[in-house]
Amino acid sequence: MTVLGLGSMGSALAGALLDRGHAVTVWNRTAEKAAPLVERGARLAATPAEAIAASPLVVACVLDYAVLRAVTGSDPLSGKDFVNLTSGSPEQAEEAAGWFGARGAGYLDGAIMTTPEGVGSAEVMVLYSGPRPVFDAHEPVLAALGDPVYLGADPGRASLYDAALLGLMWSAMAGWLHGTALVGAEKTTAAEFTPVAIRWLGTVNRFLTRYASQVDEGRYPGDDATVDVQVAAIGHLIHAAGARGVDNALPELLKSMMERASEAGHGADSFASLVELFAGRVAAR
Amino acid sequence: MTVLGLGSMGSALAGALLDRGHAVTVWNRTAEKAAPLVERGARLAATPAEAIAASPLVVACVLDYAVLRAVTGSDPLSGKDFVNLTSGSPEQAEEAAGWFGARGAGYLDGAIMTTPEGVGSAEVMVLYSGPRPVFDAHEPVLAALGDPVYLGADPGRASLYDAALLGLMWSAMAGWLHGTALVGAEKTTAAEFTPVAIRWLGTVNRFLTRYASQVDEGRYPGDDATVDVQVAAIGHLIHAAGARGVDNALPELLKSMMERASEAGHGADSFASLVELFAGRVAAR
Ligand SMILES: NC(=O)c1ccc[n+]([C@@H]2O[C@H](COP(=O)([O-])OP(=O)(O)OC[C@H]3O[C@@H](n4cnc5c(N)ncnc54)[C@H](OP(=O)(O)O)[C@@H]3O)[C@@H](O)[C@H]2O)c1
Ligand SMILES: NC(=O)c1ccc[n+]([C@@H]2O[C@H](COP(=O)([O-])OP(=O)(O)OC[C@H]3O[C@@H](n4cnc5c(N)ncnc54)[C@H](OP(=O)(O)O)[C@@H]3O)[C@@H](O)[C@H]2O)c1
Repeated sequence: MTVLGLGSMGSALAGALLDRGHAVTVWNRTAEKAAPLVERGARLAATPAEAIAASPLVVACVLDYAVLRAVTGSDPLSGKDFVNLTSGSPEQAEEAAGWFGARGAGYLDGAIMTTPEGVGSAEVMVLYSGPRPVFDAHEPVLAALGDPVYLGADPGRASLYDAALLGLMWSAMAGWLHGTALVGAEKTTAAEFTPVAIRWLGTVNRFLTRYASQVDEGRYPGDDATVDVQVAAIGHLIHAAGARGVDNALPELLKSMMERASEAGHGADSFASLVELFAGRVAAR
Repeated sequence: MTVLGLGSMGSALAGALLDRGHAVTVWNRTAEKAAPLVERGARLAATPAEAIAASPLVVACVLDYAVLRAVTGSDPLSGKDFVNLTSGSPEQAEEAAGWFGARGAGYLDGAIMTTPEGVGSAEVMVLYSGPRPVFDAHEPVLAALGDPVYLGADPGRASLYDAALLGLMWSAMAGWLHGTALVGAEKTTAAEFTPVAIRWLGTVNRFLTRYASQVDEGRYPGDDATVDVQVAAIGHLIHAAGARGVDNALPELLKSMMERASEAGHGADSFASLVELFAGRVAAR
C-alpha cells in the first residue's frame, strides 16, 4: 500500500507496515524524511499522484484536511480506497467522504489512539468509520497499525470518538495530577502513588460499565453511592488538598456540578445522573 | 475477630469474614441489623465493650471518627489491635492513632476502595497505614475483605490516598460523562462508547506511568505530545461538543489550566507539567 505523509505519525505507520512485511510506497513533501523507510525497503514516489497510482490502498496522515485535499489533487480516483488517519472534526470527515466518493474512491476515516511509539501494538486501538465493505477489505492490512476498531458507516464517528476519548484522557490525567500533588505534599512520590491509582482505575471501570446502563436508561439509582454523599466527600478532599496548598479548581468545579445535579433533584441518584448536566438538560445556575 | 458497626459497609465486612469461615463477633447500635449475620453464625454482643472483649482484633466501620471514639469508650485496651475502616481525614487518623496508642492498643487506619458489594473481591484494594507489625500480624485475616495494600507507618496515609483516589475517580467519571454526552448527541449509546473508553483508559495508564517519572524528576519532556499541541486539540473538542449542546465547563477549565502551564513556560513540555499548577507552584491568573 501507499502512505502519504511521513511526519512523526506517518513514519510510524509506514514503519509498522514494513515490520509486517508489506510492500510500501511512500511520499512526503520533504522527501528526506523518507530515507530511514527507504533503507528498510520502502519505495519513494516523486509525487503524490505517483504514490497514489502505485497501490489500491492509500493511507494518509498529514497535518490537516486542507493538506489532505491539496495533496490528493483532483484527478479521478476510481478503484482506490483511501484510509485517512489525519486528525480532524466529524464535519471534516463527512466532507472528505464526499470529495473522495465523488471521485470514485472508497473512503474510511480513522483515528489513531496512541502517540507514534505505540503504533503497531495490538493493545492500541485505531478507530475507523465509513463503509463496512471498505473496512472489511483492508482490516487484515490495517491490523499492522494497531487493533482496528470499526465504529459504523457514519464517516464522522471515528473523529467524534477521538474527541470524546481525548477529553476523557485530559480529565483522567488532570485528576491523577491533582491526586499526585495531594499525596506529594506528604512526601509520597508519583512512582509510589501511580500503581495504586492505576489499580483503582480498574475499579472505576466497573463503575463506568454499571453507569453506562443507567445513562442509556435515563434512570440513575444511587444504591451504591449517592450524589449527596459524594458532595460531602468531595468537600473533604477539597479541605485536605486546600490545607496542603493544592490548586482545587478541578474538584471545586466537580463539586459545583454535583451540587447542581442535587438541586435538579438527583441528590439521591448516582454520579451518572450528572450526564443530565453534561448533555445540557440542566440549566447552569 | 470483632466488627463494630453494621451499616451497609460494616455488614459487608462481617459477611466477608464469615464467608471465609472466621468466627465473628458483631455489635451495632441498632441491633436488628445484626440478624442476617447472626443467622450465618456471627455472635451478637450486647455492648461495644463486650464485643471488644471478645476478640484481640477489632474492625470498626461506623459513620465517622466521633462515633468511633464514643463507641470504643475509655477503658484500657491493652493487647487489642484496632483496624479502623471508617472514612475520615489524615488528621483524624493521626488523632485516632494517638487515642488508641495511649490506651495500649495497636492501631491501623484503612480505606476500603469499593462500595459494599465489592467487599471480599481480591481485585478490590483495601488500603492500610500504621505500624508494620500490626499490619503483618493481621494481613491474612484482612485479605478476606479485599486485597490488603500497605502504605507505610504514617497512620494518615490511607486517608490521604483515599481522598486522592476519589478525586481521580470523580475526574475520570466526569470526563467519561462528557464524552458520553458528546457521542450521545450523535446517537451513540453509552453501552457502545464505554467499552472503547475503558480500553482507552488502558492506554492512558501507560501515559500515567511514563509521566510519573517526569513528575518525580520535575522535568517534563514533551516528546510524545506537547501542552501547546494539546491546547489546540482541546479547542477542537470544545468546538465539537459546544456545537452539539454539551456543557463544556470541564474541558474549558482543563484548557485554561493548559494555557496557564504554557504561559508559565511549559508549552513544549508534556501534560505532566500541569502538576506544577496543581502543586500550587504556578500562580493563578
Ligand atoms: N503525533 C501524534 O501523537 C498523533 C497522534 C494521533 C494523531 N495524530 C495526527 O496525525 C497527523 C500527523 O501528525 P504528526 O504527528 O505526524 O505531525 P508532523 O510530524 O508535524 O507531520 C505533519 C505531516 O504533514 C505534512 N504537511 C504539513 N503541511 C503540509 C503541506 N502544506 N503540504 C504537504 N504536506 C504537509 C508534513 O510534511 P513535511 O514533513 O514536509 O513537513 C508531515 O508529513 C495530524 O493530523 C495529527 O493530529 C498525531
Ligand atoms: N458505603 C460505601 O460505599 C463506603 C465506601 C467506603 C467507605 N465507606 C465508609 O464506611 C463508613 C460506614 O459507611 P456505611 O456505608 O456503612 O454507612 P451507613 O450504612 O450509614 O452505616 C453507618 C454506621 O454507623 C453507625 N452509627 C451512626 N451514628 C452512630 C452513633 N451515634 N452511635 C453508634 N453508631 C452509629 C450506624 O449504626 P445504626 O445502624 O445504628 O444507624 C451504622 O452502623 C463511613 O465512614 C463511610 O464513609 C463507605
